[in-house]
Formats: sequence, structure tokens, C-alpha cells
Amino acid sequence: MEQNREGTFEDLGFARLDTDRAGRTGYEEVVYCSGKPLPYLTQIYEKLYERYGRVLGTRADKEQYEAVRKVLSHAEYDPVSRILVVDDDPRPGKGCVVVCSGGTADIPVAEEAARTAEFFGTKVDRIYDVGVSGIHRLLAETDRIRKGNCVIAVAGMEGALASVIGGLVRNPVIAVPTSVGYGASFGGVSALLTMINSCANGIATVNIDNGYGAGYMACQINRLAIGVEKGE
Amino acid sequence: MEQNREGTFEDLGFARLDTDRAGRTGYEEVVYCSGKPLPYLTQIYEKLYERYGRVLGTRADKEQYEAVRKVLSHAEYDPVSRILVVDDDPRPGKGCVVVCSGGTADIPVAEEAARTAEFFGTKVDRIYDVGVSGIHRLLAETDRIRKGNCVIAVAGMEGALASVIGGLVRNPVIAVPTSVGYGASFGGVSALLTMINSCANGIATVNIDNGYGAGYMACQINRLAIGVEKGE
Amino acid sequence: MEQNREGTFEDLGFARLDTDRAGRTGYEEVVYCSGKPLPYLTQIYEKLYERYGRVLGTRADKEQYEAVRKVLSHAEYDPVSRILVVDDDPRPGKGCVVVCSGGTADIPVAEEAARTAEFFGTKVDRIYDVGVSGIHRLLAETDRIRKGNCVIAVAGMEGALASVIGGLVRNPVIAVPTSVGYGASFGGVSALLTMINSCANGIATVNIDNGYGAGYMACQINRLAIGVEKGE
Amino acid sequence: MEQNREGTFEDLGFARLDTDRAGRTGYEEVVYCSGKPLPYLTQIYEKLYERYGRVLGTRADKEQYEAVRKVLSHAEYDPVSRILVVDDDPRPGKGCVVVCSGGTADIPVAEEAARTAEFFGTKVDRIYDVGVSGIHRLLAETDRIRKGNCVIAVAGMEGALASVIGGLVRNPVIAVPTSVGYGASFGGVSALLTMINSCANGIATVNIDNGYGAGYMACQINRLAIGVEKGE
Amino acid sequence: MEQNREGTFEDLGFARLDTDRAGRTGYEEVVYCSGKPLPYLTQIYEKLYERYGRVLGTRADKEQYEAVRKVLSHAEYDPVSRILVVDDDPRPGKGCVVVCSGGTADIPVAEEAARTAEFFGTKVDRIYDVGVSGIHRLLAETDRIRKGNCVIAVAGMEGALASVIGGLVRNPVIAVPTSVGYGASFGGVSALLTMINSCANGIATVNIDNGYGAGYMACQINRLAIGVEKGE
Amino acid sequence: MEQNREGTFEDLGFARLDTDRAGRTGYEEVVYCSGKPLPYLTQIYEKLYERYGRVLGTRADKEQYEAVRKVLSHAEYDPVSRILVVDDDPRPGKGCVVVCSGGTADIPVAEEAARTAEFFGTKVDRIYDVGVSGIHRLLAETDRIRKGNCVIAVAGMEGALASVIGGLVRNPVIAVPTSVGYGASFGGVSALLTMINSCANGIATVNIDNGYGAGYMACQINRLAIGVEKGE
Amino acid sequence: MEQNREGTFEDLGFARLDTDRAGRTGYEEVVYCSGKPLPYLTQIYEKLYERYGRVLGTRADKEQYEAVRKVLSHAEYDPVSRILVVDDDPRPGKGCVVVCSGGTADIPVAEEAARTAEFFGTKVDRIYDVGVSGIHRLLAETDRIRKGNCVIAVAGMEGALASVIGGLVRNPVIAVPTSVGYGASFGGVSALLTMINSCANGIATVNIDNGYGAGYMACQINRLAIGVEKGE
Amino acid sequence: MEQNREGTFEDLGFARLDTDRAGRTGYEEVVYCSGKPLPYLTQIYEKLYERYGRVLGTRADKEQYEAVRKVLSHAEYDPVSRILVVDDDPRPGKGCVVVCSGGTADIPVAEEAARTAEFFGTKVDRIYDVGVSGIHRLLAETDRIRKGNCVIAVAGMEGALASVIGGLVRNPVIAVPTSVGYGASFGGVSALLTMINSCANGIATVNIDNGYGAGYMACQINRLAIGVEKGE
Repeated sequence: MEQNREGTFEDLGFARLDTDRAGRTGYEEVVYCSGKPLPYLTQIYEKLYERYGRVLGTRADKEQYEAVRKVLSHAEYDPVSRILVVDDDPRPGKGCVVVCSGGTADIPVAEEAARTAEFFGTKVDRIYDVGVSGIHRLLAETDRIRKGNCVIAVAGMEGALASVIGGLVRNPVIAVPTSVGYGASFGGVSALLTMINSCANGIATVNIDNGYGAGYMACQINRLAIGVEKGE
Repeated sequence: MEQNREGTFEDLGFARLDTDRAGRTGYEEVVYCSGKPLPYLTQIYEKLYERYGRVLGTRADKEQYEAVRKVLSHAEYDPVSRILVVDDDPRPGKGCVVVCSGGTADIPVAEEAARTAEFFGTKVDRIYDVGVSGIHRLLAETDRIRKGNCVIAVAGMEGALASVIGGLVRNPVIAVPTSVGYGASFGGVSALLTMINSCANGIATVNIDNGYGAGYMACQINRLAIGVEKGE
Repeated sequence: MEQNREGTFEDLGFARLDTDRAGRTGYEEVVYCSGKPLPYLTQIYEKLYERYGRVLGTRADKEQYEAVRKVLSHAEYDPVSRILVVDDDPRPGKGCVVVCSGGTADIPVAEEAARTAEFFGTKVDRIYDVGVSGIHRLLAETDRIRKGNCVIAVAGMEGALASVIGGLVRNPVIAVPTSVGYGASFGGVSALLTMINSCANGIATVNIDNGYGAGYMACQINRLAIGVEKGE
Repeated sequence: MEQNREGTFEDLGFARLDTDRAGRTGYEEVVYCSGKPLPYLTQIYEKLYERYGRVLGTRADKEQYEAVRKVLSHAEYDPVSRILVVDDDPRPGKGCVVVCSGGTADIPVAEEAARTAEFFGTKVDRIYDVGVSGIHRLLAETDRIRKGNCVIAVAGMEGALASVIGGLVRNPVIAVPTSVGYGASFGGVSALLTMINSCANGIATVNIDNGYGAGYMACQINRLAIGVEKGE
Repeated sequence: MEQNREGTFEDLGFARLDTDRAGRTGYEEVVYCSGKPLPYLTQIYEKLYERYGRVLGTRADKEQYEAVRKVLSHAEYDPVSRILVVDDDPRPGKGCVVVCSGGTADIPVAEEAARTAEFFGTKVDRIYDVGVSGIHRLLAETDRIRKGNCVIAVAGMEGALASVIGGLVRNPVIAVPTSVGYGASFGGVSALLTMINSCANGIATVNIDNGYGAGYMACQINRLAIGVEKGE
Repeated sequence: MEQNREGTFEDLGFARLDTDRAGRTGYEEVVYCSGKPLPYLTQIYEKLYERYGRVLGTRADKEQYEAVRKVLSHAEYDPVSRILVVDDDPRPGKGCVVVCSGGTADIPVAEEAARTAEFFGTKVDRIYDVGVSGIHRLLAETDRIRKGNCVIAVAGMEGALASVIGGLVRNPVIAVPTSVGYGASFGGVSALLTMINSCANGIATVNIDNGYGAGYMACQINRLAIGVEKGE
Repeated sequence: MEQNREGTFEDLGFARLDTDRAGRTGYEEVVYCSGKPLPYLTQIYEKLYERYGRVLGTRADKEQYEAVRKVLSHAEYDPVSRILVVDDDPRPGKGCVVVCSGGTADIPVAEEAARTAEFFGTKVDRIYDVGVSGIHRLLAETDRIRKGNCVIAVAGMEGALASVIGGLVRNPVIAVPTSVGYGASFGGVSALLTMINSCANGIATVNIDNGYGAGYMACQINRLAIGVEKGE
Repeated sequence: MEQNREGTFEDLGFARLDTDRAGRTGYEEVVYCSGKPLPYLTQIYEKLYERYGRVLGTRADKEQYEAVRKVLSHAEYDPVSRILVVDDDPRPGKGCVVVCSGGTADIPVAEEAARTAEFFGTKVDRIYDVGVSGIHRLLAETDRIRKGNCVIAVAGMEGALASVIGGLVRNPVIAVPTSVGYGASFGGVSALLTMINSCANGIATVNIDNGYGAGYMACQINRLAIGVEKGE
């Protein structure tokens, strides 16, 4: 393991594990599984498990799950969110993050966000299929939505959900455009632009389909809110 | 004046006036003033006035107004919508078209739509600054909005207004993206994409800032609704 | 079932059915089948059938048809338009909507529009393969086209059909760009831009390949024209 | 003033002031000055001042400042950030938000963020010209940066600043792309894409040059961190 | 003057005049005036005049005209097409090239094409304002259009003119998109895409506003047609 | 068969065959096979064969070939160009069109152009793999290239071939961008832009991979050059 | 074999081998295997092997390897970089080129660069997975990176690696964007823009995934540095 | 002045001068003048002059020159390249870098490259207006071009110059796209794509109009070639 002023890492040749990530950021390193060859992936899971006793992986497929399960038999895989977890001692959820989805088809991305947040010890409230074209479905949940220390708004197509929610709440909204749609949705670009251009306050946006990134940031905010981290 | 099976026109050299437009479509030819040299413009206004006793021009500037006023002294100019009208006998408004704008900055485009509709004899109800980031402002007007035979939704930035309205009403919504915004609004492209990708039903979209086009089509729909035109 | 001032809905967990859609808009909720898992889809079809005695679904594939047929044995599937319908008592067509296509390859989208309109009780006249590069084929049908309370113009590649039709008729034209083409057609973007930029009056545009959206709006317009809905 | 379940507003005709914004979100409504005609602007400033005793406006120009100063003589204008403030009783800064800029040319946007945060009672630490092409300048400030409850990373051109900061801190990073650059920076699009695609955790992005939006969200996060708002 | 197997040129330091262009291609070198400093421009005009007794320049402004007139007093400038010509002995027009424009605003580009063709000895027939939204205006001229050895179709906005003409004639059509339009016309990109995607046969496209390029190629085709150049 | 002033056609329901195409343009209607269902395709081939004794189809696949061969047993298929021809009496090639390709991978598109030209009675000279990165390979063929009444330049990647050829010849160059390339070639967009922006004279461009369109127009030009068609 | 002033080549019909490439540039012609039919590919390998005794091919797949191995039995294939080499007498590596990758997923492109450089006799130092989101991993290798006569920076997603390295070293950096990423990475466009807009000095960029191009240019620079080529 | 392991800098508040740049990279820090307020700019020039006795600034305008001349009276300004230099002791040019431009309009960018290289002690050979549409002008200079340790190819419009040069030389080519052009040149994007997609070897590209960046990298390469820097 090498070290310098900014941190330590372990060089596996094909990867340099950021081994003091948890010390530096409060959260363990997470594995982006997509496209990683099986031998690399299992080795990374083993190393991280060895160090932390728990591993979160995103964008895993079934074959990767089978391979990881061979070396870490209690690995669990959720085919909807494609999250592959090994966790000996799941943390209880604290605080509150609300995850809203515009439609049914956005659920996989919403679940990636929700499960990421739960892995890092955050309590999650899911409110799905509340897209703006039937606004009464969303307004019926205003009270639940306002309870979140942070709200994650997941939507494809025109992606207007984040703006409407932004106008209803006092806490930050993380907008997640999804690739749901067709034609001029351009694989999520339309929703991304909608969210980036939102005229509502308190909205910031992550990459298309990046449920993980939204879940992670929501944890940071929730952590600040519940007083685990101290402001100056 | 030349004629063939599909219609007649008058060739001015630099322009061919579509002289049986009113017969063919029910509405007189309209002048797109932007960039037309003054001598061309005044000649076109005179010819059309001669034929119909009334002329509607869009995207006119002050200098063009002054020039037209010299030849048609009762021309009237609205600097907000940039509409330049000569009309001896304004028609009373019939039926109902509702024009909504997302923000204050969208008013010039909304007015272009509203005044176009009024020129062609349509009654217009204006509801401005009801953007989705303060959704209660829009919902307070649900009843008025539902009275329109057609609703024109004018919005820039993320352009989510059309989707929310589309979910509230039974009649068609014409969406007009505006170039209001900055950064990744790309001069109205973001709003255009939002509207084109709307998951609400009964929405179709016109070009960025094309208030005229929306107003025209709203007249066609309103005309059908009030029974001036007969369905089969 | 939950309710608020704007409407009611039924929460299935993965979806919130907009159960007063018909009351609010005059048309039942439609199912966008694409990508919906079979258990979700069949449950939605059953719920909607229970409520309305008829269901329209778009973008269905063969496997979805087989699944729905198991629970609703009289479901019917059209492989060209990919429309999956259950309808105990089809409504007779009233009024007139004309559906034109530029080429043979645009027929699937044109049929999605036509069958949507028919499901909601609209009479449809189909005029296919009348693209502008052989303009006499289109002009031969001018009289039929002019009879529509609304014309749907479906075209890919350069998408010029809508502009030419727009110049011939008095009623509104809904333009549907298709993804037919190659190279710089960019999956329908070229046709979409052509239609959005049309210099003809009375044209508004829906998303690429969105035959359903055009059919729906055409029904709204036709409904106004035949006096089912009253203008003010 | 009108009211419904979701809130109240005051209709000025050209604008509907969202008068219970402060109650709903904890922060007063802010004025986006750009392009607002002077009579509209002064009226809005007066109304909001009347209600709250303080007004924040962004994107103001010198002429607007002169006009507002005539009706509210203690208005103050900062030509760098273009912020126009009236504030009888500025709030002391609490907590800590760090604002970093990549270069000298990004300072106007960074100042918009910083002054917005300060207006809403947040303590701000400014660290400017620490772009990644001379990484030692950034690393020299690691300790200061880590003290922020939230870090705002403002950068144009390739916009890599946010990713590097994201790897160094435990709290959220709000990335603000700026339009600084030339050629293929496309007015900030390159920086926006860099930030949206960041492989670092805990980063979300706002619109190009949207210092205000970043400052606002940073306040929300800081407010949660210092315990003004309670998590569940 | 330097020479190699492929040709000769004259090096002025800031420019290398392609002095055997006329021998190689049959047409003299043409000056693209836009942005050329006055001393460079006058020197180039003098050199070319010396060599050929005639010079054609495009995209000239008034100031450049004044400068060139000082050294070549019989220079002539057309402010519409922005063409700046010196020609002691204009050639009579032979053969036939037809130049059509969609609208009045496209005339400057159409004139650049027409005057270029005339400079090189081609007879030109101009047919302006025959855009497709009033198709009868175009069809009234079918016979004249069919007489061209080549047709130049100049159009902005949706640019559908070329496709309709392409379906009517037997000889090649050169399509020239113009930057006329607004919103999603993207400075001519929409028209360019329409023309590139044309489903009509016998159409090729030049750059946006490139009237010169179309006029030049039309001359080449016309020259072949009238037998000045021999096929194998 | 229907008829109007502009022409005749035959309505097959799914297609309207433009039956006087040959009379109007001198060339028979060509079939774009891509995506046409087999029953449609064979019926179209039969109808056209009946009328003209010869049929040219482009973008055909093997399965379509097999189907057509069943009804027209002497159909011939070239898998490189994907051209599917039935021709009882191939015409001898006249005049000269030169087809150049930048690389080996561009040959399918080049062959589509060449075989189209040959079908319509044009003599073709093929010069392949003469891309600009080894310019001596191109210059070695200057004399052959100059003999073409028209030159077709087919190239992918950066597509610079057309510009270099344009500078060498006196007759028109038709540029065909291909989708050959990777990364920022964007499926041929880079090559298309290069060709559209060419600073050489006498170049016009067709759609990406549109060898057919280039071949067709080259025939028109060649036909004019060899005097089959008369200039005025 | 044909020859002219600029060089010689051998015409195989489908390809013109640039046979004096090694004389002109110092490096043998390299084969871009992707999409080449097997008979073409094997023939090219044989010809080049005959001439030089060694051949480098890029973007080869397994099937191509099998085919080449049949005619040149000692061919070697690396499935990661997809490089297919025949080399009787590998050259020892001289000088030093450093190849850095941002992540594990960028290794295939990095290896294409590294192996290309090694084929042409360059010594390569590989430093992988040093992306900027864990900057200490990169800074730990500053000394090794500074030893390169040229550094190749390979990165996807936001592609910020090149800028940071550019600020640390005195020698040139060649930036290679990769298609690694999702959503708004647009297949590598985001990384490409980041690199093109880099505010660091001494950086130039090649196409997305073009490891070969970077490796080649690095060899040229290294060759100059070690004195094989003489400066003036 | 602050210091850490990676370097030192001086914090002026609005800027952090990278004071050990020369030690780290061999070249002094350069000032990007565009948009810098005069007081900032003069202070930066003074600081850098104090430290190094020489300063290079790019993208300066006339007003900035006047301001700098007041504090450093021997400042020199070149209005073509917009370079603003203070240099007590210009270095003699060593080695050889060749700068080629496609057209006359590209000269300002070419001069920015050339003068940057000269400032850092490099000998420059300028070859202007050798664009590919008159290829003989370029080929006449093959011998001069081949003498460069590095060639800078500056071109706008279709930007094909770099590919042709790349095929002629053995040393690296740095491609600089310029914003020269109109229509679909998109401010240099077309040329940028051409260069990035070049099929020639040994080419890398910098940002649009970035003559400075190309000049800098050329110096690095030339420095290695003439042995100032040692390879391993």
C-alpha cells in the first residue's frame, strides 16, 4: 500500500483501490461493475470486503453476481436496480431521503438511488409514478415529500418532475434524468436539459441514469442534517 | 394575377402574394415583417390592404411601423408583441382560447399568439406568470384554463408548463417554447425538447418563439369548435 | 383509491392509475406498453378493463400480446402499428380525420395514429405514400384531404409533406416526423426540424414516431368540430 | 392576494409574486433582473421590500440599479457579480460554504454564488484561481476546502475542478460550469459535460453560469448542517 | 511565379494566387472578400485583373467596394448579392440555368448564385418566392423550371423546395439552404438537413448561404450541356 | 392508374408507383428496398418489371434477393453494393463518370454509385483507395480523373478527398460522405461537414452513404454532356 | 508498383499499399483491421510481411487473427488491445513514453497505445487507474510521469486526467479520450471536449479511443528526443 | 509566496501566479489576456516581468496594450496575432518548426502559433495559403515542410490541410482548426472534426483558434529534438 499526504491506495496493477476513502469521505469505495472482467471484479470485491466487511457494487449483471457469489457466498443481487451487495451488518436507516419517480419505467434508476442511500445508513421513502402529466398524484404526497432532508427526483422524457417538486419543498432536490423515452428524448438528454434549466430553486442535477450519484449525495446531505457531521 | 387549379397569386417580382389564401384557408395572408426592406414591406401592406381591408404583420420593428404608417395612416403597432396591424373593422372575439405564460419574460411571445388570435376573430383569455416552480399559481386558474377550446402554453427555460396543463384539460394544448433562458437553454432548444417529449396527451409544439403559429392554429381549432366550420 | 381536488388515482405501488382521466379529459387512460414487465402490464390491463370495459395499449410486442391475451382473451393485436386493444364495444367513427403518409415505410406510425383515433370514436381516411418528391400523387387527393377536420401528416427523411399539406387546407395539420431514413436523418431529427420550421400556417408537431400523440390530438379537434364539446 | 392549498401569491398582471415562498422554503423570493423592463422591476422590488424588508436581485445591470435606487435609495449594486441588493438588516453568516473558482475569469459567477449565500445568512470562504492545470495551488488549500459543509466549484473551459475537489472532501460539491472559454468550449457546454460526467462522488451540477442556483442550494445544505432545520 | 506538375501560382506572401486556375478548370479564380483587409484585397484584385481582365468577388461590403473602386474605377457592386465585379467585357449568357427561391428573404443568396453564373457566361432565369406552403405558385412555373440544364433551389426555414422541384424535372438540382429563419432553424441547419435527406432524385447540396458555390457548379453543368466541354 | 397535370401513378394501397417517372425524368423509378416487407417488395418489382422490363433496387439484403428471384428468376444481386437488379437488356455505357474512394472500406458505397450509373447507361471508371493521407496515390491518377464528365468522391473519416479532387478538375464533383470511421466521425457527420464546407469549387454533397443519389445525379450530368439532352 | 514524385504504391485493386511509407516516415504502414474482409486482410498482411518482415494491425477480432495465423503462423494477438502482430525480430525499446489511464476500463485503449509504441521500438512505462477523483494516486507517480519524453493520457467520462498531468510535466502530453462512460458522456464526446478545452499547456488530442494514433505520435516525439532524427 | 511539494505560487487574491512554472516545465507562465480587467492585467505583467524579465500575453486587445505600455514601456503589440510581449532579451531561434496555413484568413491564428514558438526560442518557417483545393501550392513546398521537427497545420472551413501534410512528413503534425468559414462550419467545429478524424498518422489536435497551444507544444517537441532535453 502506497501513501502520500492526500491518502493511501493499493495497487492491483489493473486498479488502484482508494483504501482510505472511508477515512477521507466517511463512505467506503463503491464498485462500478459495468464492463469489469470477472477476475478483476471478484478480486476487487474480495479486497474491499477484507478491508471493510461490506461492499456495494452498481450496474452489475447476473453473470457478475454468480461470479462474486462464488467467492463471497452471501452476496445479494437486485435485478431491478442491478445493485450487488455484500453486507454482514446492514446499518439501520436514519434521517430521511425521499425518492420520487416520474413513471414506472424510471423505477430501476430510482431503486439504484434508494438502495445506495440505504447501504450508507439512510432511511428512504419511495414515492413512484407521480409524473407531472397527472399532477394530482404528486400533490397528494406533498406532506411526505416535504419530510425529506433531501428529495431525489427521477424522471425521463420531458423530466419536469424536479421543477414542480423544487417549488414545493424547503430542502435540496437532486434531479436524475433517465434515458426513458424515445425520439427526441435523445437517450435522456431532453430530461437532462430540462433539469439543468429548471427555474425552481434548490435543484442540482447528476448524469443520465445516475441513481447511484444521487443516492450518494443525498446521504451526504442527510448525514449533515442528522448531525453526524458538524458544521462550523 | 396568375391562376392554376390550386389557387391564384400576384407576382410582385420580389414576392408572390397568395391572393386566394382567404378563400382556401379562411384567413388572409399574414406578413412576416422581419428583415423585409421598407419598399417591399409597404408595397405588400398596400396590396393586401387593397384586397382585404385589413393586414396583420408580425415581427415588425419601429422603423417598419413608421414606414407603413406613411402609406396606411391608421396602422397600429404593439411594441411588446411587435405586431403591426391595419384593420378598418376589427372582428368581435368568439369562442375561447386561453393563453398561458410561464414567466414575465415570455409575455412578448404570448402576446404575439393572443393578438394573432384576436385579429382572426377569436376571444382570448390571458393567464401570465404561472410557471411550474410555484405550481399553486397555476392550479388557482384551473377553471379558467379548462374553458378554452384550445390552450396555448408559452414557456422558456425548462418549458414544463405544457405538460402540467396537458394533464388538467380536455381540449388541445399548443406548446410554444421561448428563447427565454441562458446557458444550457440553448436559445429555446431545451424548452422545445421538453414540449416535444411531453408525456401528457393532447400536446403539439410549434417553433421557438412562434407565438403567431400557435395563435393561428388555435383559431382554426376554435373556429371548428364554435361551428363556423362543419365536420363531416 | 386516493383523491384530491385535481383528481383521483389508484396506487398499485409500481404505478398510479389516473382513474378519473376519462372524466377529466373525455378519454380513458392509455397504456404505453414498451418495456413494461409482463406482470405489471397484465395487472394494468385488468384494472383498466375492469373500470372502463376497454383498453388501448401502444408500442406492444408479440410477447406482451400473448400475456395479455391470457387474462383478457379477446385482446387484439396489430403487428404493423403495434397496438394492443381490448374493446367489448367499439365506437362508430364520427367526423373526419385524414392520415397521410410520405412513404410506405411510414405506415406503422400512420397506423398508430389512425387506430388511436378510431379507438376514441373518430372516422379516419388513410392516404398513404404521397410524399412530395412525386407531388402529383398528393395533389390528386386534395379534395379528400380538405375534408378532414384535422389532417395528420406522417413523414420521415426530409419530412416536407406537412408544409405542402398545410398550404392546401383550412383545418389544422398535426405533423409527425418518423425515424425513417439514414445518414443525416439522425433517427428522425431532420424531419422533426423540417416540421417545426414549416413556413406553412396551422401546423404543430409531435415527437418522432409519436403516431399515438397525433391521433389523440386529432380526436380532440374532431370532437370539438362535430359538436360533442361546446365552445363558449 | 390569492390562495390555495399549496400557497398564496399576488397577481401584478405581468407577474405573480409567490408571497408565501419564505414560509414554504425558508427563503424569500429572489428577482431575476435580466431583461425585466424598469417599471416592472421597480414595482417588484417595492412589493417584495414591503413584504420582507429585504430583496435580492441577480443579473442586474447598471441602468436597473439606477432605477431601483430611485425608489429604494439604499439599494446596493456589485458590478462584478451583478447582484442588486436591498437589505436593512444583513444577517450574520453561519456555518461554512467554500466557493472555489478555476480561474480569474470565473470570479463573476463565483461571486454570484458567494453573495447569494451571504444574503441568506451563510458564512462563505472564497478560494479563487485554483484550476487543475497547476494542481499545487489547489492542494495547498485542502484543509480550508474540507471545512465547508458544502463546496461550490466554479470553472469554465474543461471544468475539471469539481472532480478533483470531489475526491478530496466528505461533504457535497455543487459544480457550476461557466461560459469562460473559446472554440469548442461552446459557451460552457464542455464544462457542463465534464461536471455531469464526473467520476467523483458527491457532485451535482447546475446550469452554466448559474452561481445563484449553486449559492441557494449551498444555503439549504448549510442550514441543515448547522441544525436550523431538523432531520427526522 | 512558381510551378510544378499540377499547376502554377504566384506567392504574394499573404496569399498564393492560383494563376493557372482558368487553364485547369476553365474559370478564373474568384475572390472571397469577407474579412480580407483592404490592402490585401486591392492587391489581389489588381493582380487578377492584370492577368484576366476581369475579377469576380463575393461577400464584399461597401467599404471594400470603395477601396477597390479606387484602384479599378469601373468596379461594380450589387448590395443585395454583395458581389463586387470588375469586367471589361461581360460574356453573353448561354444555355439555361434556373434559379428558384423559396421566399423573398432568400433573394440575396439566390442573386449570388445568379450573378456568379452570369459572370461565367451562363444565361439565368430567376423564379422567386415559390415556396412550398403555397404550392400553386411553384406549379405555375413548371414549364420554365423544366427548361433549365440545371436548377438551383434556394430556401431557408424548412427548405422543402428542392425536393418538390427534384420530383418535377429531369436535370440536376443544386440545393442551397439559407440561414433565413429563427428558433430551431439553427441558422440554416434545418434547411441543410432537409436538402441532404431529400427523397427526390438528382439533388446535391452546398453549404448554407453558398449561392456562389451553387452558381459555379451550375455553370459547369450548363457548359457540359451546351457542348463547350466534350464528353468521352 | 390515376392521372393529373403533373403525372400519373398507380395506387397499390401501400405504395403509389410513380408510373410516368421515366417520361418525366428520363429514368425509371428505383426501389429503396431497405425495410420493405417481402410481399410488398416482390409486388413492386413485378409491377415495375411489367412496365419497363428492368428494375433497379438499392439497399437490398440477401433474403429480399431470394424472394424477388422467386418471381423474377433472372434477378441479380451484388452483396458488396447491395444492389438488386433485373435487367433483360443492359444498356451500353456512354460518356464517362469517375468514381473515386478514399479507402477500401468505402467501396460498398462507391459501388452503389457506380452500379447505379451503369444501370442508367453510363460508362464508369473506378479509382479506389486514393485517400489524401498518401496523396501520391491520388495524384498518380490525375489524368484519368480529369476525363470524367463528373467525378464522384466517396470518403469517410475526415472526408477530405472531395476538396483535393475539386481543385484538380474542370467538371463537377459529387461528394459522398460515408459512415466509415469511429469516435468523433459520428457515423459520417464529420465527413459530411468536411464536404459541405469544402473551399474547392464545383462540389455538391449528398447524404451519408448515399451512393445511389450520387450515381443518379452523375448520370444526369453525363447525359447532358454527351448530348442526349439538349441545352437551350 | 507505381511511382511519382511523392512516393510509390502497389495497387491491389481493393487497396493501394503505400509501399514507401517506411522511407518517407520512418515507420511501416499499419493495418486498420476493423471491417476488412478476411481475403483482403490476409493478402495485405502477406504483402506487407513480404516487404518488411513485420506487420502491425489494430482493431482486429479473433476471427481475423485465426485467418492471418493460417498464412503467417507466428502471428500474435492480444485480445485486450485487439492488436495483431507479426514480427520476426522485435525491436528493443528505447527512450521513454509514459502511458497513464484514468480507470481500469480505459486499459484496452491504453494498451493499444503502449503496444503500438513498443512495436516501433519505444520503451513504455504503464501507470494505470490514476484518475483525478483520487488525486493522490496520480501524485504518487509524479516522478515516473516526468521521465517520459512524451506522456499519453487516456481517460473517459469527464477526461480530466490530461489537464492535471499537463500541469505537472515539461514534455508533451497526448490526450486520448475514451468511449468509457454512460449518459451524457456521449460515447466519448464529453472526454474529447474536456481535453480539447484543456487550460494546461502542451496538450494535443486524438480521436476517441484512438490509442494507436497517440502511440504513433509518441514514437515520433520519442525518436526526436533520443536523437535518431536530427533537428536543424 | 506559498509552496508545497508540487510547486510554489503567489496569491494576488484574484489570481495565483504559478511562480515555479519555468522550473517545472522549462517555460515561463503565459498570460491569457482576453477579458482580464486592466488593473489585474498590468499587475500580472509587472509581477511576471519582475520575476523573469520577459512576459508573453495572448489574445490582447489594443486597450490592454496601451495599459501595459504605461507600466512596461517597451511592451510590443502585434495586432494580427494579438500577442503582447515584453522581452528584454529575445532568444535566438533554434531547431525548426514549420507553420502552414490553409488560407489567408487563417494567418492570425498561424501567427499566434509562430510568435509563441519564437518567444520560447524556436526557429519558425512560415508557409501560408497552401490549402488543399489548389494542392500544387502545397506540394511545391514539400521539402521545406519536411525540415520541421514539428509541423503546425492551421486551417478553417473543411480543415483538410493536416491530413495531407501528415501523409508527407516523418515528424509530428499539430493541427489547429480555425473559426474561419460560414454556415455549416459552425465556428470551426467542422475543421476540428476533420482533424480529429484524420486518417493520416502522427496528427494531434488543439482547440479551435488555439495557435498558442500549438506553438507551445511545438516548442516542447523541438526542444527534445535539438537535445536541450534529454531522453532516457
